[in-house]
Amino acid sequence: MRDVAVIGVGITKFGELWDKSLRDLTVEAGLKAIQDAGISSDDIDALYGGNMSSGLFVNQEHIAAMIAEATGLTEKHIPATRVEDACASGGVALRHGYMSVASGIHDIVVVGGVEKMTDVSPSLATDALATAGDQEWEAFFGMTFPGLYAMIARRHMHEYGTTKEQLAKVAVKNHHNGSMNPNAHFQNEISIEEALSATMIAEPLGLFDCSPISDGAATLILCPLERAKEFTDKPVKIVASAQASDTIALHSRNDICRMDATIAAANLAYKQANLRPKDIDLAEVHDCFTITEIVAIEDLGFVKKGDGGKAAEEGLTQIDGKMPVNPSGGLKAKGHPVGATGVAQAVEVVTQLRGEAGKRQVKDAEIGMTHNVGGSGATCAVHIFEVV
Amino acid sequence: MRDVAVIGVGITKFGELWDKSLRDLTVEAGLKAIQDAGISSDDIDALYGGNMSSGLFVNQEHIAAMIAEATGLTEKHIPATRVEDACASGGVALRHGYMSVASGIHDIVVVGGVEKMTDVSPSLATDALATAGDQEWEAFFGMTFPGLYAMIARRHMHEYGTTKEQLAKVAVKNHHNGSMNPNAHFQNEISIEEALSATMIAEPLGLFDCSPISDGAATLILCPLERAKEFTDKPVKIVASAQASDTIALHSRNDICRMDATIAAANLAYKQANLRPKDIDLAEVHDCFTITEIVAIEDLGFVKKGDGGKAAEEGLTQIDGKMPVNPSGGLKAKGHPVGATGVAQAVEVVTQLRGEAGKRQVKDAEIGMTHNVGGSGATCAVHIFEVV
Repeated sequence: MRDVAVIGVGITKFGELWDKSLRDLTVEAGLKAIQDAGISSDDIDALYGGNMSSGLFVNQEHIAAMIAEATGLTEKHIPATRVEDACASGGVALRHGYMSVASGIHDIVVVGGVEKMTDVSPSLATDALATAGDQEWEAFFGMTFPGLYAMIARRHMHEYGTTKEQLAKVAVKNHHNGSMNPNAHFQNEISIEEALSATMIAEPLGLFDCSPISDGAATLILCPLERAKEFTDKPVKIVASAQASDTIALHSRNDICRMDATIAAANLAYKQANLRPKDIDLAEVHDCFTITEIVAIEDLGFVKKGDGGKAAEEGLTQIDGKMPVNPSGGLKAKGHPVGATGVAQAVEVVTQLRGEAGKRQVKDAEIGMTHNVGGSGATCAVHIFEVV
Repeated sequence: MRDVAVIGVGITKFGELWDKSLRDLTVEAGLKAIQDAGISSDDIDALYGGNMSSGLFVNQEHIAAMIAEATGLTEKHIPATRVEDACASGGVALRHGYMSVASGIHDIVVVGGVEKMTDVSPSLATDALATAGDQEWEAFFGMTFPGLYAMIARRHMHEYGTTKEQLAKVAVKNHHNGSMNPNAHFQNEISIEEALSATMIAEPLGLFDCSPISDGAATLILCPLERAKEFTDKPVKIVASAQASDTIALHSRNDICRMDATIAAANLAYKQANLRPKDIDLAEVHDCFTITEIVAIEDLGFVKKGDGGKAAEEGLTQIDGKMPVNPSGGLKAKGHPVGATGVAQAVEVVTQLRGEAGKRQVKDAEIGMTHNVGGSGATCAVHIFEVV
């Protein structure tokens, strides 16, 4: 297996982009990444596209081939593959791009993630998102994702004394980080009071505990590490790429306060990279809801199980904290175009490791992690990146 | 890269299976394959699931994790990945299972394909299938897949003198083959007269020129060839695995009488296997319409471009012909649960190479090919299998 590097990144603004189609978004992010890598589209040997539900959102399946054509990659008839594991589609696409380069099957690979969610009404979008859970045993009975994560939050409060204020602290931090990210869906700061007094969505989760419905795309260019210096002075090495699964329905889990897929993927990733949680300088974790970030930092080993709320309260996860989490603004403020999210997390980590994150730069960032969850935890992809 | 073998196959009956859910189908095919391979589910290291549009057909995305759970694979939290490239999803899933074993990343991998199409009305199914084409430039204007392939047929008739009788011959042959396949959707013979006098769907394609809307699932178990003899006396080696892309819309092609993605994938596969078209003993090719089989046998190099219709007329592609094509009955008679098709083709080829195909057995079958197309040719996966 060869070492693999990220040599280019591209991302669109995230948000309600009514004037841009799914195709427009992929072309914009794709061309930015190609330019950033300093390659030509002729150099690309394969394409992976992460997307959750272009079928339900824009009535278009088969988007990998469509993206390959739209970004000028059809001449060479390269393999173009969409992967879908709900909101972890982007992270899983990255893993498959990584595998195809590491194995020597392909040399230069483009990994894109995209979701165009605002062409349907918010209630239809909520229905579409519910297909990431168990349709027959959850969604059919009216369960939505805010409802699922509200149950996780309630149980976490019961088991560990986590408070609504601690949840709100996650939202306040991530909005603060998003205010320094020109591509974020929300670039406004919010106060604890605003978060706590917001419209209730699914008790105990209020509006500011929930990530938004966003449009957006993100792209990475990968190549063998040994070739990376041909293209860039700042290659970032992928030192771990791991993926795990769990039951699709929440009711089948042993303990809904933890995500076993996260724990399994993280353990594998730490082993691959020969690193421990304390070696990670920053992490982009899957905060589709505020409670998800709290559960994630526990499952990833940054804090003890049950201490996630306290960590948020005490500022551990701020950009200037001991363990910066979601400097991009996270799904909460940066936005959550679901299929793009896993790739966008990697774009942020690479940007941070290159020292190009501007006002939201994490100091001395040399090792970064991405953590991307599908559904209520049935899929998880974890990657670790390191400055070369 | 390691050699990879198929050590187990499983398939459901294809058809309008109103009493079986998507989950039921995957469990049935999966357990058959696990039993056939003589492994336990604990032995499995990863799962790939090919599926085109469970979102539009049964309102369920994230099915790889769901299948992993339903088939008892959640204990180990194995990576479970859905791949989607329209009707080529199954073939592309097979390629990714193959890559993950060949590269040494995983040892024992299950590759499933599934589609549950009859929970929606036929017109909604036609709309869902149209999302394999270009939504903005084809489907939105009313174009359906019979319409797209009718244009290919018309042009092929114009360029090469292909006749409706030759198209009908493909249907008659595949229904004959399907009559010997207990898992086929259609197990009835038809006559040339019946085919020619059938209801017109999209001139010149009548009802019997079109594959049906089917439910079904198929599964393969892969492992490194060096370990195959632990599990089976009849391992079948995968000697080539290739995938290519092309423009999603038909109007962007240089010549709609050929599929450049097929040509690219086939050339790569022949090179990988160091074989020529005449070395292939049988092929399962993508006959979503009768014209598609004619174009495919030309593009795969079995006959000269333009001679596909004549080949059908003269019986070249019959089970006892010089180049047997679709002994299973093909998509036309066996049925076409779109995401399952590429995997089901491999199940048939493996069954043939093991000499277990009963009445439809191709004599002295040692090398077999599968050819799986997405949309009107924007994706193609080609695999070659050989008796060890």
